[in-house]
This record gives sequence, C-alpha cells and structure tokens, in this order.
Amino acid sequence: MKKEIGFDEAQELTFSSIVARKTETLGLDRLTDRVLAEDVVSSVDSPSVNASLKDGYAVRSGDLQKAGPESPVFLEMAGSISAGAATRLKVAAGRAIRITTGAPIPQGADAVLAEEFTRLAENRLACYNTAGPGRNILQKGTDIQKGQAVAKKFDRATPPLVGLLATAGLDRATVFKSPVVCVMATGDEVVAPGKPLPEGKLYASNITEICAWLTQHRIDSRVCFARDTEEAVVSTIREQIDHVDLFISSGGIWGSEKDLMLKVLESLDWKGIYHRVRMGPGKAIAFGFLEDKPFFCLPGGPPSNEMAFLQIALPGVLKMRGHQRPRFPVVSARLAETVRGVGHWTQFVHAEVRKEEKALVVVPLQQRSRLQSMAGKNALIRIPEGTEVLDAGTLIEVQLLDTRVLREE
Amino acid sequence: MKKEIGFDEAQELTFSSIVARKTETLGLDRLTDRVLAEDVVSSVDSPSVNASLKDGYAVRSGDLQKAGPESPVFLEMAGSISAGAATRLKVAAGRAIRITTGAPIPQGADAVLAEEFTRLAENRLACYNTAGPGRNILQKGTDIQKGQAVAKKFDRATPPLVGLLATAGLDRATVFKSPVVCVMATGDEVVAPGKPLPEGKLYASNITEICAWLTQHRIDSRVCFARDTEEAVVSTIREQIDHVDLFISSGGIWGSEKDLMLKVLESLDWKGIYHRVRMGPGKAIAFGFLEDKPFFCLPGGPPSNEMAFLQIALPGVLKMRGHQRPRFPVVSARLAETVRGVGHWTQFVHAEVRKEEKALVVVPLQQRSRLQSMAGKNALIRIPEGTEVLDAGTLIEVQLLDTRVLREE
Repeated sequence: MKKEIGFDEAQELTFSSIVARKTETLGLDRLTDRVLAEDVVSSVDSPSVNASLKDGYAVRSGDLQKAGPESPVFLEMAGSISAGAATRLKVAAGRAIRITTGAPIPQGADAVLAEEFTRLAENRLACYNTAGPGRNILQKGTDIQKGQAVAKKFDRATPPLVGLLATAGLDRATVFKSPVVCVMATGDEVVAPGKPLPEGKLYASNITEICAWLTQHRIDSRVCFARDTEEAVVSTIREQIDHVDLFISSGGIWGSEKDLMLKVLESLDWKGIYHRVRMGPGKAIAFGFLEDKPFFCLPGGPPSNEMAFLQIALPGVLKMRGHQRPRFPVVSARLAETVRGVGHWTQFVHAEVRKEEKALVVVPLQQRSRLQSMAGKNALIRIPEGTEVLDAGTLIEVQLLDTRVLREE
Repeated sequence: MKKEIGFDEAQELTFSSIVARKTETLGLDRLTDRVLAEDVVSSVDSPSVNASLKDGYAVRSGDLQKAGPESPVFLEMAGSISAGAATRLKVAAGRAIRITTGAPIPQGADAVLAEEFTRLAENRLACYNTAGPGRNILQKGTDIQKGQAVAKKFDRATPPLVGLLATAGLDRATVFKSPVVCVMATGDEVVAPGKPLPEGKLYASNITEICAWLTQHRIDSRVCFARDTEEAVVSTIREQIDHVDLFISSGGIWGSEKDLMLKVLESLDWKGIYHRVRMGPGKAIAFGFLEDKPFFCLPGGPPSNEMAFLQIALPGVLKMRGHQRPRFPVVSARLAETVRGVGHWTQFVHAEVRKEEKALVVVPLQQRSRLQSMAGKNALIRIPEGTEVLDAGTLIEVQLLDTRVLREE
C-alpha cells in the first residue's frame, strides 16, 4: 500500500484500479444518464415510409409544372390520408389526395403541395404553386436507416439519445450496472438524524451528505452505523458485503487508538492501494479492495470527509458505473481575494462563484463556521501542490459543484 | 387566449401563471435538490459541547506556559476520553487527560496539546510546547447555534445543505411538492417502444425523451396514449386528471382536421393562456389550465416537440416544484460558423460546444438527419427575434444542455 501520495497519483490509481465490468439491460424509462455497455444499431428505418412533412396535398409534380399565383392548375380530389392510417389509395394524373404531416405518401405521388398554396372548392383543388419531385417529402430512412449505428459503447444515455433509441426501434439497452454503495458511519459519537442528541454526540451529517450526492446521481445506497470496536466494524461489513458493490466509510482512519478502519481491513485481508494523500482537507483517506469491492475510508471531520468524497470517492463510484472522466465541470473565473496554498500538498478552498456583469468572479469563503462555509459554497478552488499563492485578480479555473450560477438572467 | 406571441412573453406568462403551492414534508434521504417551502432553524448547538479538534491531551494552559522543545513540562496522566463517550473526568493542576478528535473537553481543561508535541512514558507526559487558552478546542455552537437560521424558503436542498440540516438536528423538511406529470402521446401513427412497427407508423420517441428529461430532474411521470378522435383524447384526460398535477401532450396542435387538442380542451372548458409562439422550432405550442392544472400542448414533429418542451414546458414543470429561475446554464463560446435567424421569431439552433485549448467553441449542427442532430447536440444557440444573423467568430452566449463538456481535462 502506497503512503502519503500526491493528489494526482491518488486520482490516477483510483481510476485505473476501478473498472466497470458488470452490465444490466434496462428499459428506456430507466436509462437516463446511464453509460452504454455496447454499441447500438437501429432495428428499423425512420421514417418507415416516405412521409409528408406538411399538411397539404399529395400530387404528381408533373401536373403542377405550370401552376402559379395567377394561373392555378386544377386537380380532382381523390381521397385523404392521415398519419398512421394504412392506405391503398393511388394518385393518378390530374388528381390529388389530401395528406397530413407524417402520413405516408401514396403511390403515384412524388410531391406534397403545402396547404397554403391551394384552395379547395367542392371536389376541385386549385393549386397556386409548383411542387418539384420530392417537395415536402421526408424520405424513408432519412433520420435513421435500419442497421445504422445510433450509439456507441461508453456513450451516456442523455435524454435526446434515449429518444433516438426509441426511434431506432429499441425498447431497452445494455448499460454498466450502477453500484449499490454501502455508506458506513463509524464512531460512538455519531447519532442518526431524528434521534435525541446526548451531550457530546453529533448527528451523522457526513453520511447524510454523501447519500444526498449519490441520490443526485441516482445511485442507490445503504446506510449503516458501526460502533467504535473492531468487532462492531467487522460484523457491519460482513452484514453488508453481499448486498453492495462498493464501500464508503466515514471516520476512524486518522491514526489514534480509536481509529480502527485500517486494522479491521487488514484483518479482513483487504488489498490496500493507498493511505494518506497530500491533499487538504481530506488527507487521511485510504483506498483499497475488499473481496474485489472498492473500499474508500474517508476521514470523519466534516470538511475532510466531504472533500475526500468529492475529489476521490465520488469519481470512483462513477467510474464503476462506466463514466470515463467523472469530474466536475470547471469554469474560468476571476479570483476576488488572494488565497494561499500549503506548498507541499494540493489544497482545496470552498468558494462562491458569482456572475457580475456577465463575467464570473470567484470569492473564497472564509466563514467562522466550517459547516456553513460547506453549505454556502458552489465551487472549489484547487491550489496545486507546489503553488504557494493565487493572487487576487488572476483568472483561475474553478470546479463548479452547482451550475445554477451559470443560468440565463 | 393570446395568439402568436413572442418567445419572451410566452416564458413570462408561463412563469407568472404557474405558482408552487402544494407542499410536502420529506425525510432527509428524499430531500436532494428539492426546494424548501419554509425557513429552517437549528434545533441544536453544533458541536453540542466544547470538543477537541485534535488527537492529543486536554490540559490547563497555565501548566504549559514554560514548555518548549528543549524544556519539556511533565504532567501526570489522569485518564482518557474519546468522542461520544460520557465522562465525569476532571483535569486538575499538573495533570493531563488523553483526548481524541471530537471528544468533549473535560472540566478543568482549557486547551488541547496536539499529540505531536508530546511523549508519553508510563504515566508521565512530556509536553514540548505551550497550549494557550482555547487551543485546539472547537467551542460549543461554533458551527451552528440552536435557533439559528440554517436555510431559507426557496433555498434548494443541495447535498451540502442536506448535510447541514442533519447537523442542525433535523431529520425532515417541508418542500414544494414535486408535480406528477401526465405525458400523453396523441396520434394514430404513434407506437409504444418495443411493439412491432406497422408500415407508416413511428415509435413514441417524443414522449420517451420527455420522460427521460423528467427522470433526470427526478420528476415522476405517467405515460399514456390517445388515438386521433376527440372521444379518445377526452377519455384519456379524464382517466389521468385525478392522478396528475400537470399535463404535457404531444401532437395534434398544428391546425389540420386531425389536430384535436384545442377543440378537446375548449370542450372541457380549459382556460387557455396562449397558442402559437414566435419561436422555431416549436411554434405551435399551446398552454393553459384545465381544472387549475397546467396543460402544455406540444407539437408532434420531433424537433418542435423537443424545443417547445425544453424552452417552455420543462421550465414550467420546475416552476411548479418551487424553482424560481428554472433555466439552462449559459456559457460564452466563440461561434465557429455563421448562423442565420428568421427575423420575425426567436430561432433555436442545435449546436455542439467543444473545448479547444481551454476556450469554448460552438459549432452549429447542420446534419442531414434531424434526429441525429437532436441527439448529437449538447447546446442550443438562441437567435433572438429581430436578429438576422450571428457571424462566425462572434462570442455568443449558448445554452448548455449537458455540462460534461466543461469537465477538467
């Protein structure tokens, strides 16, 4: 197990050791934002026939060659066709058939004259414009051809792509399985929300926040609590391990006599990858595999817990679900106040990005309450290892945790 | 009912007529991204006692005034305290108590000396540093004080805020109810995904995509299909109306003899707000209220359907859930090719934003297949009414439908 590694190396080791393997086949209604595990080809042509793009009249283009605003050509009506209706009607010379948007072009016709260029009186259609071959016709297979690739392995099923899969004749797709995450609080001081709070104890805000982030990504989690003994932690892990794909524990990783996580995991013969990362907050994080399941041990202090989760564990969870570059969006913003790094590690600073006259400004948050600074931030400033200071006025890239600040006014 | 209104007026009428009213109280595990319907105050102090910020030793600061790296002060050990444990231990003069992070400061002590400045031999603790009053102590209520406001009405429950609510002693909160949306496909030509596709019919890609967008926002939907008769549409609406809060229909709004939606809604005595908006695609949209439930009639052509949904119906749904400015994020990007507007309406153009050497470039998509252009875009260019052309090379604001393009390299 590596010790005290740099942040970039920790991220690299996390991504390279977690590989999406398991797949599942889901209906379109459960596909949103999942990652495809195989290429997808269309099983149909779309449209399935030549179809009208307009409400109007199916005609033979040759009949209307001399039609104009002042010199209508008159055609005889021979029926009507609407979208979705089967028809055996044909358009003979000198005739027209009423047609609505999406309806199949009848035999004999090679164009649709839009309604606005016509006047219908009894059974005679006055046509005030030409309609060249193919006019207002969406040819069979224009949108998609049967057998054509419509999506690739590792594509994310965005809503428009889910719609495209429906058009392509699919009602399901194979995606990487979404891991079920065990989110485990350790520590005698931790109390579940809603229970009475004895003096000296605290509510389980870390795991509550972690579960909220997982919910935002629509990832299922199971919450559990373990008391501060090796036996309690071992038995909690054993209860959960057959039901989950990945573990995230909170607390017990710093190194005091009460910090049991590493002892327990070593006793269970885990494969440790790293412990302690040169990042702040979040330094005490450990990562490895227990029975081939990724196991992130996060520190228990709220700012450390959150940062280790956001920068390392959450990307790891998303990698397991097939996302190839699971990182936060970054934007350029002008730094409102000078911030100082630590030099020998990567420092993350809570910040608020604001829009000022269409330009983005980023303000480091230096509030007295750690927790209100955590809840008030919408961005993180990353000061790389080796950088001592970022000066006020500099244009820097910041991680956006919440893109609402970018909304249209 | 207003007719042929401008896009900005349509958006304004939509936002001003849809008001979030119904509320529900949800546990923290269901709160993510919901909008609070009332202010929230803390029911506890956090921390609930003065607590240690470090692993180390609780001491009386006066005892260590002369301690230094070369001149240790020796204290007698008098027990240990860990986080979450109740204790009656006291620190008398000349004594120290072992303490771990988060543990309550015992009576008598006013500072914590961090472990790194100590050496313990049997029951004697050598202290190599001073520890002024309050050193390494997180005072009771520093993070949150009982009765303090922690969130306001209309705040969105981001994951860090959900964590903060837990810390503040809450296990639930009152939020605006998330509407259940009826997504209704109309038209004899529409076939549900997975069923055989008779010639001339097409799969229900519109409503599939709409439901995928709603899923992305974790909004529940009920899908239904109505055939092309007034009776069928009326009976479908009647079946659904007691189970849903909002309607979105697809198709039947253009104006041909098969376009039944307005006729049906007028027969049901709806309150129409507007029909037809000067926007493209999506012009044929209608909006009103049926028995006080918002009803969006979207056109049936896929690009029109999607644009009317994204620009008008989806923001309307989110407004009903309490979001105050439910719009897409916008970013500045350099336009790669000239695009032309229509002048007398607002035009939306499918586009792809790319990151090129850290700058954003936006490429209008002009693909042969409408549907692949729909699925390939990650952004929309909006050409306002009255603007004829946006020139290549101009820096423009584009709506981002997917922020993955902004991710860190």
